[in-house]
Amino acid sequence: MHYPALSGRTYFNYGGQGVLAQATLEAIATGFAEVEARGSFSHANNTWFAQEIAQTKQVMAEELGVSADSLTLTENTTMGCNIALWSIDWQQGDRLLISDCEHPGVVAITRELSRRYGVVVDVLPLLQLASQPTDDQTLLQVISDYLHHKTRMLCISHVVWNTGQILPLKAIAELCHPQNILVTVDAAQSAGVLPLNLTDLGIDFYAFTAHKWWCAPLGVGGLYINPAIADQVHPTYIGWRGLEGKSLGAKFEVATSAYPLYRAFRVAIATANQWGNQAERYRHLCQQAQTLWQELQYTPYINCYNPEPPQCGLVFLSVAGKSAPELSRHLEAHANICIRAMPHPPCLRASIHYLTTANDLDNLLTALRQL
Amino acid sequence: MHYPALSGRTYFNYGGQGVLAQATLEAIATGFAEVEARGSFSHANNTWFAQEIAQTKQVMAEELGVSADSLTLTENTTMGCNIALWSIDWQQGDRLLISDCEHPGVVAITRELSRRYGVVVDVLPLLQLASQPTDDQTLLQVISDYLHHKTRMLCISHVVWNTGQILPLKAIAELCHPQNILVTVDAAQSAGVLPLNLTDLGIDFYAFTAHKWWCAPLGVGGLYINPAIADQVHPTYIGWRGLEGKSLGAKFEVATSAYPLYRAFRVAIATANQWGNQAERYRHLCQQAQTLWQELQYTPYINCYNPEPPQCGLVFLSVAGKSAPELSRHLEAHANICIRAMPHPPCLRASIHYLTTANDLDNLLTALRQL
Repeated sequence: MHYPALSGRTYFNYGGQGVLAQATLEAIATGFAEVEARGSFSHANNTWFAQEIAQTKQVMAEELGVSADSLTLTENTTMGCNIALWSIDWQQGDRLLISDCEHPGVVAITRELSRRYGVVVDVLPLLQLASQPTDDQTLLQVISDYLHHKTRMLCISHVVWNTGQILPLKAIAELCHPQNILVTVDAAQSAGVLPLNLTDLGIDFYAFTAHKWWCAPLGVGGLYINPAIADQVHPTYIGWRGLEGKSLGAKFEVATSAYPLYRAFRVAIATANQWGNQAERYRHLCQQAQTLWQELQYTPYINCYNPEPPQCGLVFLSVAGKSAPELSRHLEAHANICIRAMPHPPCLRASIHYLTTANDLDNLLTALRQL
Repeated sequence: MHYPALSGRTYFNYGGQGVLAQATLEAIATGFAEVEARGSFSHANNTWFAQEIAQTKQVMAEELGVSADSLTLTENTTMGCNIALWSIDWQQGDRLLISDCEHPGVVAITRELSRRYGVVVDVLPLLQLASQPTDDQTLLQVISDYLHHKTRMLCISHVVWNTGQILPLKAIAELCHPQNILVTVDAAQSAGVLPLNLTDLGIDFYAFTAHKWWCAPLGVGGLYINPAIADQVHPTYIGWRGLEGKSLGAKFEVATSAYPLYRAFRVAIATANQWGNQAERYRHLCQQAQTLWQELQYTPYINCYNPEPPQCGLVFLSVAGKSAPELSRHLEAHANICIRAMPHPPCLRASIHYLTTANDLDNLLTALRQL
């Protein structure tokens, strides 16, 4: 399978945006062209759009281990987080727990909830725990310590975007649910990485995007809503699609989207599954990430932030005496290596995918050693 | 200019979805391909995405007679209506006035505002006024009668989707503003039809989509927010794009979108402007719509609902003894004519565009007369 972005380039930004297979790119072009051929706003297309939505949710559902009815199609992860965070009837003095490693976009939502409804936002100190190996029991105890009798929701990442920690969601849900606390998960760095069975995890909301690790087009994402909480949640932004939709997930959709991108998403998933199943992709990705981690341990002047061999695709590093933003620009301009700089902690983040090759790792290590 | 959807087809559904020029289709394909060629998540693309957003707002701004800073990019009209309707701090007992001709998606938003905040929704009887010629003074008096000292917002269409009425927005804004009432406009059937200068109209929110009359891709729309109300309004759904954006409009954007569609939008606008400027396009569209209207007056068994020669692209008709939904399906299946059935009043809606030809009108009239 050909990925045009990988031609002559060493790519480590899957956590920002994936790369499209040639087949996925072609599906975008043919999808839009076929909508025109079927007559744009026509009965033929109305039938097709409905089938596209249904088939796309079915494919997402299979990847996530949930029912298609529990899925809302969105533009991106943050849209899903918004739907979740605005879905309950917040009262003055209610509390919302987030970690200090949540994405700035999610933090912005919690600030607006605070301004508008008087919600008190508590902040879990996850960053300090990431600097050393931390067992799940310790983590659960810290979360438990931060829960308050007025806490109504915990909003947390599955894979933390700036540390690579994987949070034990099943145990977290089991801790929160007896206290009537909903668990909202930012899955930007986990969907398309970890083998997933959301039904088993038992969390309430799981907001993901398809354009990162799944290598699908920009503008396609989704939200899983646990059917058990159907009576507790309401859409905020709403529209004709939410009215027409009979399923729980459809109620949270709004209006017209770029439907041809949905088929391209399915092509991206089919392409991934041709490479290997979820478990195989995850195993290979971990092997590659651990190889890099191992090499970094023996490389002088390079600091690796992951305290243990990574169990996800994110490896964090810095080079002594070099600013990460400048280094990121330098590597792209002079070595065709795409690797992003993180704001906090200030370092480089290498996103390792199952598409990452031994040659890619060599290129990065060679470039870093030549600095 | 070639429009694939118009090949061998008579098309009257611009009010549902426009048709893409071949150049617009090609811009979608090349846009996504170029993102890959530039390295997906790369410094090169980050610069390009920012330029795309800025250039796209500039083109929209020129079409609408506003500053680019006052524009929010959205997925569709309803998203813009949601942003507007959720943007103020509604209090229990506040009132919101909508007309009885607003789109079901907009009505759904007002119901949720009512459920969540105790907003009282008043309904202006616009439908009965549409059955006969109504002067602006009469209309303004009816609106004035429905305003209450607790009314905080009027939400109304510029061109009414199920009657084709054009509302005098400037006079409506002048009526509402002294009473501290914001005016939110659903522009689904006016953007790309009427020559527009929103600054002159003075309304507060103008929510539009590009995929209908502007013949741009599915998934691109926008919202104009009057800079005069910047201090009164807040984003509800929010994300990193809203945080990074320095302009009023950008604050209401959320996160990653299918950016290559923005360039395709600009190609669609450039294609339209090659045909003629806004005034020329509007004049031709009105001529075609009035020609159809005139013919329908002399056609037995056909009822035309527009009481006067249309000043927009929408012509409403029914055929004695025929159900509109069945007729719509029949015309698509047997005559390759795309014309939609409306739920209320039950009739067919012919959307007449500047691309509509005399031959298109002949095809429709011939098919209707042969029934």
